[in-house]
Amino acid sequence: MTLGFAILGAGRIGQAHARAISATAGARFVALSEPTQTAADDMKARYGCDLRSIEEIAASEDIDAVAICTPTDTHADLIEQFAKAGKAIFCEKPVDLSAERVRQALATVEDTGAKLMVGFNRRFDPDFMSVKAAIDAGQIGDVEMVVITSRDPGPPPAAYIKVSGGIFRDMTIHDFDMARWLLGQEVVTVMAQGSVLVDPEIGALGDFDSVNVILKTASGKQAVITNSRRATYGYDQRIEVHGSAGMASAANRHESTVEVSGGAGFTRPPLLNFFMDRYAVAYANEIAAFVAAVTAGGALPTTGQDGLRALELADASLESAQTGKAVTLG
Amino acid sequence: MTLGFAILGAGRIGQAHARAISATAGARFVALSEPTQTAADDMKARYGCDLRSIEEIAASEDIDAVAICTPTDTHADLIEQFAKAGKAIFCEKPVDLSAERVRQALATVEDTGAKLMVGFNRRFDPDFMSVKAAIDAGQIGDVEMVVITSRDPGPPPAAYIKVSGGIFRDMTIHDFDMARWLLGQEVVTVMAQGSVLVDPEIGALGDFDSVNVILKTASGKQAVITNSRRATYGYDQRIEVHGSAGMASAANRHESTVEVSGGAGFTRPPLLNFFMDRYAVAYANEIAAFVAAVTAGGALPTTGQDGLRALELADASLESAQTGKAVTLG
Amino acid sequence: MTLGFAILGAGRIGQAHARAISATAGARFVALSEPTQTAADDMKARYGCDLRSIEEIAASEDIDAVAICTPTDTHADLIEQFAKAGKAIFCEKPVDLSAERVRQALATVEDTGAKLMVGFNRRFDPDFMSVKAAIDAGQIGDVEMVVITSRDPGPPPAAYIKVSGGIFRDMTIHDFDMARWLLGQEVVTVMAQGSVLVDPEIGALGDFDSVNVILKTASGKQAVITNSRRATYGYDQRIEVHGSAGMASAANRHESTVEVSGGAGFTRPPLLNFFMDRYAVAYANEIAAFVAAVTAGGALPTTGQDGLRALELADASLESAQTGKAVTLG
Amino acid sequence: MTLGFAILGAGRIGQAHARAISATAGARFVALSEPTQTAADDMKARYGCDLRSIEEIAASEDIDAVAICTPTDTHADLIEQFAKAGKAIFCEKPVDLSAERVRQALATVEDTGAKLMVGFNRRFDPDFMSVKAAIDAGQIGDVEMVVITSRDPGPPPAAYIKVSGGIFRDMTIHDFDMARWLLGQEVVTVMAQGSVLVDPEIGALGDFDSVNVILKTASGKQAVITNSRRATYGYDQRIEVHGSAGMASAANRHESTVEVSGGAGFTRPPLLNFFMDRYAVAYANEIAAFVAAVTAGGALPTTGQDGLRALELADASLESAQTGKAVTLG
Repeated sequence: MTLGFAILGAGRIGQAHARAISATAGARFVALSEPTQTAADDMKARYGCDLRSIEEIAASEDIDAVAICTPTDTHADLIEQFAKAGKAIFCEKPVDLSAERVRQALATVEDTGAKLMVGFNRRFDPDFMSVKAAIDAGQIGDVEMVVITSRDPGPPPAAYIKVSGGIFRDMTIHDFDMARWLLGQEVVTVMAQGSVLVDPEIGALGDFDSVNVILKTASGKQAVITNSRRATYGYDQRIEVHGSAGMASAANRHESTVEVSGGAGFTRPPLLNFFMDRYAVAYANEIAAFVAAVTAGGALPTTGQDGLRALELADASLESAQTGKAVTLG
Repeated sequence: MTLGFAILGAGRIGQAHARAISATAGARFVALSEPTQTAADDMKARYGCDLRSIEEIAASEDIDAVAICTPTDTHADLIEQFAKAGKAIFCEKPVDLSAERVRQALATVEDTGAKLMVGFNRRFDPDFMSVKAAIDAGQIGDVEMVVITSRDPGPPPAAYIKVSGGIFRDMTIHDFDMARWLLGQEVVTVMAQGSVLVDPEIGALGDFDSVNVILKTASGKQAVITNSRRATYGYDQRIEVHGSAGMASAANRHESTVEVSGGAGFTRPPLLNFFMDRYAVAYANEIAAFVAAVTAGGALPTTGQDGLRALELADASLESAQTGKAVTLG
Repeated sequence: MTLGFAILGAGRIGQAHARAISATAGARFVALSEPTQTAADDMKARYGCDLRSIEEIAASEDIDAVAICTPTDTHADLIEQFAKAGKAIFCEKPVDLSAERVRQALATVEDTGAKLMVGFNRRFDPDFMSVKAAIDAGQIGDVEMVVITSRDPGPPPAAYIKVSGGIFRDMTIHDFDMARWLLGQEVVTVMAQGSVLVDPEIGALGDFDSVNVILKTASGKQAVITNSRRATYGYDQRIEVHGSAGMASAANRHESTVEVSGGAGFTRPPLLNFFMDRYAVAYANEIAAFVAAVTAGGALPTTGQDGLRALELADASLESAQTGKAVTLG
Repeated sequence: MTLGFAILGAGRIGQAHARAISATAGARFVALSEPTQTAADDMKARYGCDLRSIEEIAASEDIDAVAICTPTDTHADLIEQFAKAGKAIFCEKPVDLSAERVRQALATVEDTGAKLMVGFNRRFDPDFMSVKAAIDAGQIGDVEMVVITSRDPGPPPAAYIKVSGGIFRDMTIHDFDMARWLLGQEVVTVMAQGSVLVDPEIGALGDFDSVNVILKTASGKQAVITNSRRATYGYDQRIEVHGSAGMASAANRHESTVEVSGGAGFTRPPLLNFFMDRYAVAYANEIAAFVAAVTAGGALPTTGQDGLRALELADASLESAQTGKAVTLG
């Protein structure tokens, strides 16, 4: 069986998924919905896909699955529409910036029995998968502490910040999902601290650009997340999991393995700077996992509930950073 | 001029300072006060020092400086006694477990004009000094975030925990000092979270064995400290300072630089496991810095105020971990 | 302009080039010649290419270039045939195991004015390209010494050894090309030493499995090559270039960046074990460079002369290892 | 029992051994012989040693052992003199620049039954000892290839080159000893290549400044040594031992573990630049091993035969570099 795909949105992430779908055995990129004509034409020229409207896609017999790559404020509506249309759904995070709206959409998913996967690409990064495999194999004993470092090369433009939902919902949300995945338990208490150190304009918009978060589970396991909108040396993405019998850690990926040495020391190149390069394999793996799960009729590796949980942690972090109090989740 | 030293206490740390004083040009290890006769005799045999009582040392003309290496609950009294006796004082941290008592002792130091250095040895570690030098040289721009990882190889015995003042006052106190030193600003807000994951007996004594702390300065700079009483791979001591123009980080020291490779991968040895080995050079540098400052009549690199500030951060962290609220320092 | 390609041979390397050609803008995989029907059908199914005979390809108007991926003993004949047919030629190394036969084929290439590139894929590895770029940018001053480490994970089967031309012509030949490229000068003297340490059957066939070579240029620059048919820890591929002002080195690529730490130390995974994985990007870059050069009508990055020179160094090394004398090249 | 030591020569290496002897339990630095009065007085002031003539030392009852740290051309005579005087002898390498003269001196040592250790300090470096321990523990199977990299930060002055015996006898001699030690077999064939790339004055004196050597044992094990009188990034000292079941390697020691990262990449400091710093622990261990062996009456870890063998390999390398032929040792 080959899964017929429609992609909704031909932006950067839509293009990434187009590449991934085209390269995945058992998947076919059938149709695209994209309002901007030039972007639509480019994709058609490159992949030979049809151009269809959202409604046409919902009604298409040759479409089994949709990849929602549109702006965030359309995600929940589209999930509901395609759940009712009986399509398998891959939706980019976040489902919505409002946890309440997410819950509504997930209710529809549940009622219709639709398949929904939320795109937490980092779980599919080969290095992070190796860390998880080491944990699952018992190599580090019981997990005690998770430390996640995630720093963007530079701040996004103010226009993006305005619609992003703030750093916790836009950036840290990936780390909340990683923390839950690596802790292997739900977080019950959140403490967070936010600052504006990189770009005053971000502060003027009521957001932070530098945050630290401590998560704690019922059994006392902890996770620490450190985020910054600035990293002059490249896209800094590390995890470290400390257990009763050892530690598993994933290091950064540099532009090359080359070191140049001289009187001033030994210099390695900066880190891969662009998230699309850093997580290129993760994006491909993610789509392959979606295709494999839908085709086999099995459970999806990341679900709408994962999306909701990460958003709740983001909301709790924002509250903690604003009130100076630990926030307990229900 | 040669500085005549008396060491008070011939325990592990007293022995470390004996080695350091003996190896420091401009210093001479003149006398020891130690109630346990065999320990006293061993030091005398090894270093040729005199054995004298505390009172004799206070009255000795050939003693210019004392190194206080006795149990914590005697530190404040001894500081006051030797401040009045006009001796330069090197005191192991902490000055006392009570911030109030510390303030009293420091008042005496101020009144007498005595020289007091509190032993925060990590500031004298060559690797950490290089990080600080990189900051001071402007290599990373303005400091934004400090991340300190400090994990002990294993928990101390319950008897030690009982008199330690708890993990924040005993273990994290070093990291509070490092954070202040590296941030270059005073901390105004503290958030902390504690768990018992390593040893239930520690929990039974009302202490934590696994803690994370977020510190924040008035301008929004942050420091994260992660501590555990367990690290199966050795004594884990790392710092990372993120600035507007770059990052400076100090890595761990392994037992050797050797890597053994085969079908199972590439294996490097564990970390130096014992704090005396890991910080051997730091202990020597620390004494040399004390001797240099006292001899030159200049400012001491770490003062009683540093000791007090670190203790206040420990107290605030404990309160935050207990109440779930951020604690603001006066 | 799009370059129409025919691939001759659907073996492992033919498949690699099929992937590369399909992924290269400006190139199209038009036809395949492959005597084994199932292998031919597989490629046709995957890439939609035509299946044609060698003669049909030589006569095809829609074929601009051929990629010769057939057994070594057919390379020289095919080069001559397609040079006369006016096709651009990409040929896997070696051109032939006989330097004399290579010279004949290159004479035909010269007479016909054909474009010929010999596949020294390592020059197109991003890490090694970074080393070369550092040299060309003057970062290490004048090159003095090159050290190349190349160890295969395990020995090939005896059947392969028999037709391989021996370790110097089969394995070291890549390193000879790298050495010439990095030294930036021709080698004039060769010293080599060979042993049988891995597989006695290799010795029984008159070949070595462990060799070391010292190359020297007229100005005294030196290169050292160390080869083994065994590396339990993966495919070991390193270079190090020492210059008057510094050193540039490329490290190995591990399976992941993950390190697992515990009482036994810190363990990273083995190296990428398969040359197709290790050099996946190099194979793609190599074809892209061929397409770009042929399309632009410019010089090819690796030529028949490069193939001949590397073979001459292999012959000289064999002679040196057999006679115990340095061999001087004409 | 405490071993009474005399040191002959108060130069750089004599001072290093003075520090080592003073710090070694079971050893006492009794007397020094040094013709330069100021150097002699400095040592006396620092260590409280007596100043005696060579003859007085030979006749001294309180001297059990001598450390010969005088110029090379006096070593053989002093070994003979002190062998006859019944003193245990620690002699810096080389015993003499003439293998014939070394054999004479060793004959005297054998006739008198004297204890003689030749100072190959690198065998006592903790990192290299770990590599050897890994081999001896069977962690890498049978040793197949040894790769030794040894590069000096910069060339010595011409005056030193003139009396050094040339790079093979002065610098590579350490690596010959390391190769023998790590191979665990005697070398039977030597191939070497020399160049002048660093300093033309070295060439004018008939010496090389850049050499590569291939050693081979009777069973085919090989060692490669690469030497240069220039390394802008510090004192480059690495070994790598490849065996049938794995590889053990020792990396360089940097000035610190600190890395500074920014837009230009990640920079670690240069290597420890001075051999006395790099091998500080090795020098101490070496003397401790001598003291332990002499005191226990056991075998010395490095003998006169080791010194002779290394010199023979140096002579063979020079011959090979000059003639372009492999040289076979008797």
